[in-house]
Amino acid sequence: MSLLVVGTVAFDTIHTPFGKVEKTVGGAATYIALSASFFTKNTGIVSVIGEDFPNDTLSELNKRNINIDGLQVIKGGKSFYWSGKYHEDLNNRDTLITELNVLADFNPIVPKQYLDADFLMLGNLTPAIQQKVMSQMKKKPKLIVMDTMNFWMEAMPAELAKTIAMVDVLTINDAEARQLSGEYSLIKAAKKILKMGPKYLIIKKGEHGALLFDSKQIFFAPALPLEDVFDPTGAGDSFAGGFIGYLDKTQDISFDNMKRAIIFGSAAASFCVEKFGIDRLLEVSEDDIHERIKEFISLVQFDIPLK
Amino acid sequence: MSLLVVGTVAFDTIHTPFGKVEKTVGGAATYIALSASFFTKNTGIVSVIGEDFPNDTLSELNKRNINIDGLQVIKGGKSFYWSGKYHEDLNNRDTLITELNVLADFNPIVPKQYLDADFLMLGNLTPAIQQKVMSQMKKKPKLIVMDTMNFWMEAMPAELAKTIAMVDVLTINDAEARQLSGEYSLIKAAKKILKMGPKYLIIKKGEHGALLFDSKQIFFAPALPLEDVFDPTGAGDSFAGGFIGYLDKTQDISFDNMKRAIIFGSAAASFCVEKFGIDRLLEVSEDDIHERIKEFISLVQFDIPLK
Repeated sequence: MSLLVVGTVAFDTIHTPFGKVEKTVGGAATYIALSASFFTKNTGIVSVIGEDFPNDTLSELNKRNINIDGLQVIKGGKSFYWSGKYHEDLNNRDTLITELNVLADFNPIVPKQYLDADFLMLGNLTPAIQQKVMSQMKKKPKLIVMDTMNFWMEAMPAELAKTIAMVDVLTINDAEARQLSGEYSLIKAAKKILKMGPKYLIIKKGEHGALLFDSKQIFFAPALPLEDVFDPTGAGDSFAGGFIGYLDKTQDISFDNMKRAIIFGSAAASFCVEKFGIDRLLEVSEDDIHERIKEFISLVQFDIPLK
Repeated sequence: MSLLVVGTVAFDTIHTPFGKVEKTVGGAATYIALSASFFTKNTGIVSVIGEDFPNDTLSELNKRNINIDGLQVIKGGKSFYWSGKYHEDLNNRDTLITELNVLADFNPIVPKQYLDADFLMLGNLTPAIQQKVMSQMKKKPKLIVMDTMNFWMEAMPAELAKTIAMVDVLTINDAEARQLSGEYSLIKAAKKILKMGPKYLIIKKGEHGALLFDSKQIFFAPALPLEDVFDPTGAGDSFAGGFIGYLDKTQDISFDNMKRAIIFGSAAASFCVEKFGIDRLLEVSEDDIHERIKEFISLVQFDIPLK
């Protein structure tokens, strides 16, 4: 049981219709690892931060058995910084600031003890960095999951396609699936994207849930309808973290188990959005997750006897 | 087993990104009754048409045991006519033409044999007409389901609120639920709307599925992801028709049976959108519906043993 997570560890300034938070801890790897830690107890992070990053957060990661041997601290450097503003509907956001800082020269180095990790989660990053991590692995992980975004589709489509061809599962949102495939129908989009290499595709639809495709089957999981969605930042990463954390815990990559993993990922994401940044994830217990799973079951299960 | 359906029987001119069809048969009651006829065999329509309405369609209704004693034919009159154009994403549309024609002076008269109908479906119409139908019923139906739209929320909110207070189930889309309640969160919106009178609320989210609320429970049904969505016109009405048709067939209005009814309604809607207007509904068999139910089960069912 071991999971390697690569991605940003960063600061975010977030504006939502409900308030604003300045330079709170964020980053794809942070959300992924925290969310995975509800399930698996051996997660390592590969990332880079500056000297400005708070020790408190590093202690929180340690407390959850998240190994940070692969987290480079650059002397005198500043951590990656993003600022964004959500629209009234929370489904769209504008990026206000992106400061790469220490991420600009990031050269990922996988710690020895994770060179044979069972599961590898490539959070959204330059495709070249995602490739560099894959190339360091001593044995092929059971499953490589890759997240990416529209920015790379526009800036470096060839490099992105090469990276996508190397992974088992691609996770993108619905707009990105349409952009990557040139197809409006998500079914047609999925067929084209699966031909690019991955065996599985997860299309994230935010408050409208998520779809899992392989070449033969489709599974749909709703997002839990919530009384208050406070801050969507990190929801996709929390989803991915819960997904791969559950797979690592169970060591079962069948389609049926991936369905379960998607429900656990959705449960983790449903907590993430209830407070700013990672605040809610730090409060949640395994029991809370299980309570929420019950809500998912009650939300979607029905019983129709087949003829 | 009997179902009374009130609503428009009309002509539509529909522009979608995939083509255009001129003056095809449409109307809420047409879609509702056709879709209900997959399940229940005793449906009556209350509506009004002009002399321009094709006899062929009336024969098609008859063939499906849809009683048209309550369908008034106005001599020299023209049927209600709507024309609309869908945006590229098919989730939004602009109305180009609305000609009320014979609908302007419509005075609904419920035929004797439907005055004690078990189920009453009020398709989208002036709230006053929906009320007139309810007031004619000799006994309270087991369930009254009402559809409405944003137009009435703006044009006559008091009259609409009075009508909503008289029904058991209200069906509206997500934007309308937000407008009617003044709440963005659909959970909060549902709580407010249920306080207006109905025991149940169905929020239709188009390609993103539908939510069923009562004061204690929530059920979510996805829309079936389709390779091609050709024309969304009538999808909501087909959904409502399948929903109430299944309830009339089974004569069971428990929450658990409503869940099943929503899946059957979603199956009917998933066929409706595959061709222009009512064309696809006229081709589909009960067996086709059951095949599609299997797809729904495979799409959403998962198995997580509870602790």
